[in-house]
Amino acid sequence: MVVATDNFPSSNGRSISPNTIIELEKGDPVVLEKYWRKRSEECSIVIRGWEMMSYIGDAKNKVCWYMLPEVERSIRRLHHVVGNAVTHHRYIVVGTGATQLFQASVFALSPSHPSKPINVLAAAPFYSEYQDEISILRSGLYQWGGDAASYQKNEPYIEVITSPNNPDGFIRGPVVKSEAKGKLIHDLAYYWPHYTPITHQADHDLMLFTFSKCTGHAGSRFGWALVKDIEVAKKMTRYVQLSSIGVSKETQTRVVKILEVVCDGYQNFGSMESELFFEYSKRLLRERWEKLWEVIDESKVFSVAKYSKAFCNFTNESSEPSPGFLWLKCEEGIEDCESYLVEKLKIRGRGGKRFGVDSKYARISMIGTDDDFNEFLKRVSNAKKE
Amino acid sequence: MVVATDNFPSSNGRSISPNTIIELEKGDPVVLEKYWRKRSEECSIVIRGWEMMSYIGDAKNKVCWYMLPEVERSIRRLHHVVGNAVTHHRYIVVGTGATQLFQASVFALSPSHPSKPINVLAAAPFYSEYQDEISILRSGLYQWGGDAASYQKNEPYIEVITSPNNPDGFIRGPVVKSEAKGKLIHDLAYYWPHYTPITHQADHDLMLFTFSKCTGHAGSRFGWALVKDIEVAKKMTRYVQLSSIGVSKETQTRVVKILEVVCDGYQNFGSMESELFFEYSKRLLRERWEKLWEVIDESKVFSVAKYSKAFCNFTNESSEPSPGFLWLKCEEGIEDCESYLVEKLKIRGRGGKRFGVDSKYARISMIGTDDDFNEFLKRVSNAKKE
Repeated sequence: MVVATDNFPSSNGRSISPNTIIELEKGDPVVLEKYWRKRSEECSIVIRGWEMMSYIGDAKNKVCWYMLPEVERSIRRLHHVVGNAVTHHRYIVVGTGATQLFQASVFALSPSHPSKPINVLAAAPFYSEYQDEISILRSGLYQWGGDAASYQKNEPYIEVITSPNNPDGFIRGPVVKSEAKGKLIHDLAYYWPHYTPITHQADHDLMLFTFSKCTGHAGSRFGWALVKDIEVAKKMTRYVQLSSIGVSKETQTRVVKILEVVCDGYQNFGSMESELFFEYSKRLLRERWEKLWEVIDESKVFSVAKYSKAFCNFTNESSEPSPGFLWLKCEEGIEDCESYLVEKLKIRGRGGKRFGVDSKYARISMIGTDDDFNEFLKRVSNAKKE
Repeated sequence: MVVATDNFPSSNGRSISPNTIIELEKGDPVVLEKYWRKRSEECSIVIRGWEMMSYIGDAKNKVCWYMLPEVERSIRRLHHVVGNAVTHHRYIVVGTGATQLFQASVFALSPSHPSKPINVLAAAPFYSEYQDEISILRSGLYQWGGDAASYQKNEPYIEVITSPNNPDGFIRGPVVKSEAKGKLIHDLAYYWPHYTPITHQADHDLMLFTFSKCTGHAGSRFGWALVKDIEVAKKMTRYVQLSSIGVSKETQTRVVKILEVVCDGYQNFGSMESELFFEYSKRLLRERWEKLWEVIDESKVFSVAKYSKAFCNFTNESSEPSPGFLWLKCEEGIEDCESYLVEKLKIRGRGGKRFGVDSKYARISMIGTDDDFNEFLKRVSNAKKE
């Protein structure tokens, strides 16, 4: 299949020169901007000069004292609407992105006075930043232990389960077979209806979510954790306190407004289904994935693993996932997918080695701008002819 | 002197019961709210639903890529107006409060592959959180080395100079006498005209500032660093990236607006001097300090070290500092100032041991609400009669 330029209209009419590098290395979720432009005024926040000057969000909250009470209510309401996670009997801890909370979680689950650092594990391919986040300060409390699937030690460990997985979009469970005592962190950043069917209410001890990948507001730097054990929640809060004395109140104000608009859509009569956030966003992603499969199915250069359908309790229909990333594999003869992409196609992706696997793989963002996505498809489509 | 209740009108008419504990342990800068209420509408920010969704603030900035370009301009303009620090040939790195940037600085100045952790020092009394921030993860790169004044080792070190100092408000310089190579971090959170005379333009390799203590917007979690060496600035940025993938864009938007209003006041004709931010804030703090000295000078229980006058290049007058904290010393017979305060007077302060000195000392916030400050004065005033 040869895809003509006309099939890929630029959303802003900008034509991308063939020599321009397309940046699809980060997972910047700007595809969702289109939805929020339609709801622009309704979602505006106004903050006056004297508002929210204090460090404190809720002096009555004995766990997460820097969180505004309405933030906690919004988060519980969202999970109630979507049905993707249990919030009952859970403490909520908020952070400057799930990135900060991941580190807070590892700190909170690590023994306080270890004889040696506890191993933090994730099954490969794993999120490329975990290793650096764990290793950057050479902590004596914890250390990066590598691929969870090959962990053989009979020592306590922390396993991170990213589900759906970043980079490959698959649903996952714990994989460590060790008889030693393990603690689990569930990173559920992508467990939302636009990315994957909601097959069950997640019910784990420590679950992480992020505003960035839920509504697409990555610039806000906001994440939350649902935590069963109050001592773990308190220790996480202490980490966030020492790391940044809490979380921006301007951000918290915006989170409340955006989540209110999302939830109101579902709970008020008269909303058009096609205009609801998750339905709209799912359609955007599905359209991209459908175009992508057309190109990939014809490609002799790249392949992508297929996903199974599953029934989504939220949308009440069976569908395939439409992950936030494309996990591309180069076919025989191309050993370094990242280099091939950037050198031959001027596409910047993130190579497999960063995710703990072979360099034949590379991750490409599926959630960037229309222009970049369409140009990406065009170049991948043409690549097969070489 | 017996101070009658009537001399201390509550700002909101709330009367504080003698059994209520007054919380003056944190440095929550809500005293400055009064100024921003007067400028409320002028300082409002509006953020629409689709704005600033990206992680990226300025793709062209090769150091601090998550910073909005207008934030950088605002910070340079502010220092230009106040004259408290050199920004020429300096890189700007922003963080989620100076707290995050302090840790980014220590990381950036530490050797990457040390045979043993480098010592981080500060002269006692030092800011109570440095030690925990340095020690929390038991880093192999750096460790808390305690009081800089008693450092004897002939090994590389990092010295933190807090000037004016938290908790005691004095101007400081480096104190380590070691012949080993030392790197310096200047924490200038309180080097603003409302707290202390601006006697010179600070010109150090790495200087930290915070929005919290400058304009009083602690809830925003925003700080900035002025950094001479590009490699240090890049390493700090990498720390912030791994710690929280940047800084809230909502916060950045607010910083731009608030600093614009501050600077416009000084640079536009027709502003009334008494309505300018630093003049107004200085007056608020001076009034508190004057009331305080009246009480302390009469007290047989507490004493406070006196400050010298200095000429302020910004206000063009000679004046005493009016620090953000009161560094209280209990007189003979009271060994634990923090316990005395909370048990006898129901005042929560932070004891000397947290600052690396004797428990005869305690730190009290001077920047809380009018109600709490006035009730504090009343109780301290009455305490002398016991």
